[in-house]
This record gives sequence, structure tokens and C-alpha cells, in this order.
Amino acid sequence: MQNAQFKARRDRARELMLQNGMAALLIGLPANRYYLSGFELHDPQPNESSGYLAILENGEDMLFTDARYLEAAKRLWKDSNIHIYRTLSAAPGEINQRIKERAGKSAKVGFESRLMSVAFHREFCPGLDLVAADGLVEKLRLIKDAAEIELMRKSAQLNHQLMNHVPSLLKPGRTEAQIAWEIEQFFRNNGASGNAFEPIVAVGPNAALPHAIPGNSQIVQECSVLVDVGARLADYNSDQTRSFWVGEHPARYFTVALEQIQEAQRRSIAAIKPGAICADVYHAAYNYLADCGVAEHFTHGLGHGVGLETHEAPSLSPRNPQPLAPGMIVTVEPGLYYPEWGGVRWEYMVLVTENGCEIL
Amino acid sequence: MQNAQFKARRDRARELMLQNGMAALLIGLPANRYYLSGFELHDPQPNESSGYLAILENGEDMLFTDARYLEAAKRLWKDSNIHIYRTLSAAPGEINQRIKERAGKSAKVGFESRLMSVAFHREFCPGLDLVAADGLVEKLRLIKDAAEIELMRKSAQLNHQLMNHVPSLLKPGRTEAQIAWEIEQFFRNNGASGNAFEPIVAVGPNAALPHAIPGNSQIVQECSVLVDVGARLADYNSDQTRSFWVGEHPARYFTVALEQIQEAQRRSIAAIKPGAICADVYHAAYNYLADCGVAEHFTHGLGHGVGLETHEAPSLSPRNPQPLAPGMIVTVEPGLYYPEWGGVRWEYMVLVTENGCEIL
Repeated sequence: MQNAQFKARRDRARELMLQNGMAALLIGLPANRYYLSGFELHDPQPNESSGYLAILENGEDMLFTDARYLEAAKRLWKDSNIHIYRTLSAAPGEINQRIKERAGKSAKVGFESRLMSVAFHREFCPGLDLVAADGLVEKLRLIKDAAEIELMRKSAQLNHQLMNHVPSLLKPGRTEAQIAWEIEQFFRNNGASGNAFEPIVAVGPNAALPHAIPGNSQIVQECSVLVDVGARLADYNSDQTRSFWVGEHPARYFTVALEQIQEAQRRSIAAIKPGAICADVYHAAYNYLADCGVAEHFTHGLGHGVGLETHEAPSLSPRNPQPLAPGMIVTVEPGLYYPEWGGVRWEYMVLVTENGCEIL
Repeated sequence: MQNAQFKARRDRARELMLQNGMAALLIGLPANRYYLSGFELHDPQPNESSGYLAILENGEDMLFTDARYLEAAKRLWKDSNIHIYRTLSAAPGEINQRIKERAGKSAKVGFESRLMSVAFHREFCPGLDLVAADGLVEKLRLIKDAAEIELMRKSAQLNHQLMNHVPSLLKPGRTEAQIAWEIEQFFRNNGASGNAFEPIVAVGPNAALPHAIPGNSQIVQECSVLVDVGARLADYNSDQTRSFWVGEHPARYFTVALEQIQEAQRRSIAAIKPGAICADVYHAAYNYLADCGVAEHFTHGLGHGVGLETHEAPSLSPRNPQPLAPGMIVTVEPGLYYPEWGGVRWEYMVLVTENGCEIL
């Protein structure tokens, strides 16, 4: 990604900012900050920010960070647009000063109210008119541009390679935790920088928990295994689930459930196109599972947006009235869960195209 | 760690809470939440919490989380002390209701003002008297108990094993990124759940950035390499730095700088004992480096507390007036940086004991 592309994104954010009557916009959510600047997709700890980005009316945007990140900032921005704060606790006051100098006293400044802490807000607000601007940058991130779609395609491709490799890992005697670590090594040895999320490898009944943690349960001959994993490749996340049977004699409960969710998945993917309502896509899967008499075993949403964050908008939930649009990428992952024996889930990443959709 | 130990910690937090006139305390910082309950040391994304813990006057503490974590919560707490919120956005309102039912309307409720978002606070505050309670749990975490010291000892021990192994990894032609990944695999293959922080492997001039990111720079014969890495073992972090010379003929600038920081480190460790002021420990190192005429090349604090978080209190900074006490664990990591050739840093983890200190 080139600096010019980040600048173009900031120009679009600036336009939205001005349409909302804001003279400046302060961004701290790592994925938003990175999307607009290329600066640090991660914070080192939940209580430690890598830095903040201010979008300003005159285009002279500012990057605020601490001394640890000075060189990283300099690789992206010229010195006059970088401010190094003395300490993390001094940051809100120093950012307030710089924004006031540039946007004027009493300027209307947008901030991420779902992210900014109460303490930061208290020290950041004097002499500024702070207004919540949640979702403004997320609205841009919702539609992936051509470069992002290419990166998402590569990220999904790595996950397909992994899933082709997984059957060779599922040997009786191996534990969920061992397999999860082998999967992570496969991703990393093939260019990923890390996991998109904590990997799920669930043997037999453990698959009944949609977010099972890999433990010491061992693969046995003739058992089901649910694998839900993803990698971060060139900063973009993948997310795929497959349900495997280890052995030659898959149980009938397994094959029946698998056929049901795969048909539910086909129907919901067939419903994905520009203008389709997220809730309707969910119901295309749900209604089929209801017809099969198993809807009560489908206990979560159908999917979620995926990109710089593993979970982002739009949500394919039963209540989301949002229409889909070209460039959105969502997971489609119906599942059926049975405490007695486990469960199945199958997941694809789906790009909304001009005419319909495409499985990545 | 047993449930009884978490309960004992909550009783101590409750005592501090009552001393501060609070009827309840809401905790969301992952390390604080885990410290008091054993529930989830990590959040899945910066904008997604795994859950919240409420400490209540009557001892019937509550765990608030979403359906994904129900089973994890049930393994720790009985059903009547668990509340599953419908969605992340419904959480603050539902938690508000439950706390009001238990602590009474207009109850004084402590919250983490450096963590809680402005939006969460707005929906959480109706009918409650919210007061900032930052540092209350951190005050307990500052002094490691016997079980924690044992875990920190094991975590540090794994890092020593790694550092003994590192010279065999430093072969000409290998890149920083390759070595960082080999180090991570060593940690994971020896029981660690992950890195304590992004590993630093910096060849030659790259070491001049205290937080260098491992890249494609290759080891060459006769070069310096700075390695600053740590693992998370049984949830507790280690953090160690060593500076190596690859080859038989270390440059004089390297050996001189190394001797200087090692002597600075010895002097500051000699100053660590109960009652010693953090700033004075810093100055024990700084003053020696000033006597050597190189203090301007020592560009960061001397160290920081380490435990469930890699960076926690107390900070060995030049301005911290806090006195040390038995059970604190701090890093001591003086460094000297020279843009021309790189730099050196050497780091130990040091436990404050009854009479002085001990290098872990």
C-alpha cells in the first residue's frame, strides 16, 4: 500500500468529516488508524496506544505517538506532521493543544466514543467541542477497494492451502492443541504474520462450543473434528471453518448435519448480491434449517464482515437491516451444535460483486 | 491458580473498594479481570471485550459476558453469578440494571476511567454514582504473591534457556525476521502460549531503535545483534534483552558500551531494596553513564514492572517517586544507542525481596 493510497482514504474521511460539520477528527482504533495512515495496526497492550491520527480540514493531518514509534512514523510522514508526546498520560493534553492550534478554539472535533476512555476524553476536551464520530471510518472500510480485495484474495488462498493440508494433521493420538500449533506454524511458514484469531480445533463433543479452546483432547479413529482458523497475511485476515471426519465410516449424525449446513450455506450465498438485506441472507440459511427441523441447533449469526479486523461490519445477523453493496466481504458460516456428539460448521469468505457474489 | 485464590484477591479488592466508599466496582481491563477471577486474560479485538467483572459489597460478585464465553464462565462461577448479555452494545445497559438491583439505586460504583469508553460510560451511568477507581486493582497486582513469584520464576527461566540457545541461531545469512520466528517457536515448543510482546532482533545499526521491528537485514560475520524477547508462560510474561557479537573479533565500540551498561546495571540492581525510590534506582544507572560521558545515549527509562502485563507498574523512570516493596518485579534494562553502529542493551528481571533483591 502506498502513501498516496492512504492519503486518498484520508481525503474521503475528510469529506465525511466536513459533511458532518467537523473541523477535525481524532482516530485511535488501531484498524482505523492503520487504514488511514499505514501507521501501526496494533497497540502493544489494551492500556497502551501506539498513537493517534488527527484528520484536519487543511489536509495537514497529524500523527501523535511516543518516542518508541518515532522512526516508524518518520518512514511514513514528514517531521512537521508528527508530534511525539512525552508520556502516554500527557498525550490527551498535548493532542488537545496541537488540534486547537490548527483547528481553532471551540472547534467541533469528531472522536471515537466507543473507543476513547473517559479519562482521555476528560483531558482532551477542554476548549474543544467534541462530538461522537463512531462508524465514520468504518463506513469507508466496509467497502474494500481493489488493492484490499487482492490482499483478501491472497489471505483466503492461504487458508485454502491450509485446509487442504489439515487432513494430514488429523492423526489419532494428536491433541487439539498440537494441531492448532501446527496450523499456526503452517500459516507463519507461508508468509502470515500471525493468527487472525485464536485457532479453534475441536474434537467430537468439544465442537458443541462455537468458540472452543484447543486442549488436550485427542483425535481418535472415527471422530469428527471442527477446525476454524484464519491467518493475517499482509495485514488482512482470513477466516474459514471446515468439519472433518477422521476415519472411513462417518457417523450418520455427522453426514446429515453436514449436508444440512452446506445446503443452508448454498442458499444464503445464493441470496448475496448488491441490495440484499443482511437479515434476509441470514434467514435464507435459517429458514432452510427450520424446514429441516434443526433451527434450534443453529445458535449464532450467519457471519460477519472481515478485513483489517476479523470481526467488522456488516453482521449477517437476524436483525441487521443493512443492504449489501459491491466490495463488502463477509463470512458465511452456518453451524449446527449437539452437546451429545459435537457439531459441524462450514465457512466461506464471500465478496459482494456488481452482479452477485464470489466465494474467495 | 485455584478459585479460592481468585476469591481471596477479590476480598482484598472489596476491602479497598469499601474503604473508598464504593458499593460496587466494575472491572474490564483484561489483566485486572483475570487477576480477580481467572476469566479471560485477553479480549479478542480492541473493540470487543470478553466480559466484565463486578465486585459487590455482599460478596456475590458477578461475571458479565456474551454467549461465546458462557462455558468458560461456567467452569469458574456458578450460574447465578453469571449474566450473559444479548449483544456487546446491550452490555452497559444490562450491567447497569444488574448492579442497580444488587447495589441499590444511586450506589457509588467504581470504574476504570482509563479503560471504559465514553459511549459505554454514557449507557452505564444512569441511576448510578460512577467514580473513577483507576489503579485500585493495579495496586494489588503490584505486589506479586508467592504463587505469582513462582510462575514469574518459571517464565524468566524459559527466557534464560532461550538466551542460551540464541547464539546457535545467529548464523551469517539469516535474517532478523527468521531468527525472531525461530525464537517464538522455541518458546512455544517449550510450553509458552505466545510472545510477551513483539520480539526484537536487531542487526548492527538497526539496534539504534529501541523498538526495532525484525526485518530482512541479515546477520554477517563480525556484527552486533540485539535480542529483546519474552514469552507468556502460564499467563505470566518474561522480558529479557541481550546484546551479542557474531564473530571472533568484537569491535571496541561494542565491548566498551557493553561494559558500561553492565556496570550501570550492576549499580542500579545494587540500589534495589524495599523502600528504595524508583527514580533513585534509575539514577544509579544514569549517573554512572553520565560519569562515563555517554548519558545522552541512554534514551529511555531504566525498566518497568512485569507480570500479567508486559508493561505494568512500577516504572523505573527518572521522575517516579514510588518506593519499592517486597514482591515487586521490575526489569532493569539500561541501553546505549549510536546511530552509526547500533547499540547495546542488557536486561534482567529483578524481584524485590525483604532484604534487597534477587535476579530471576
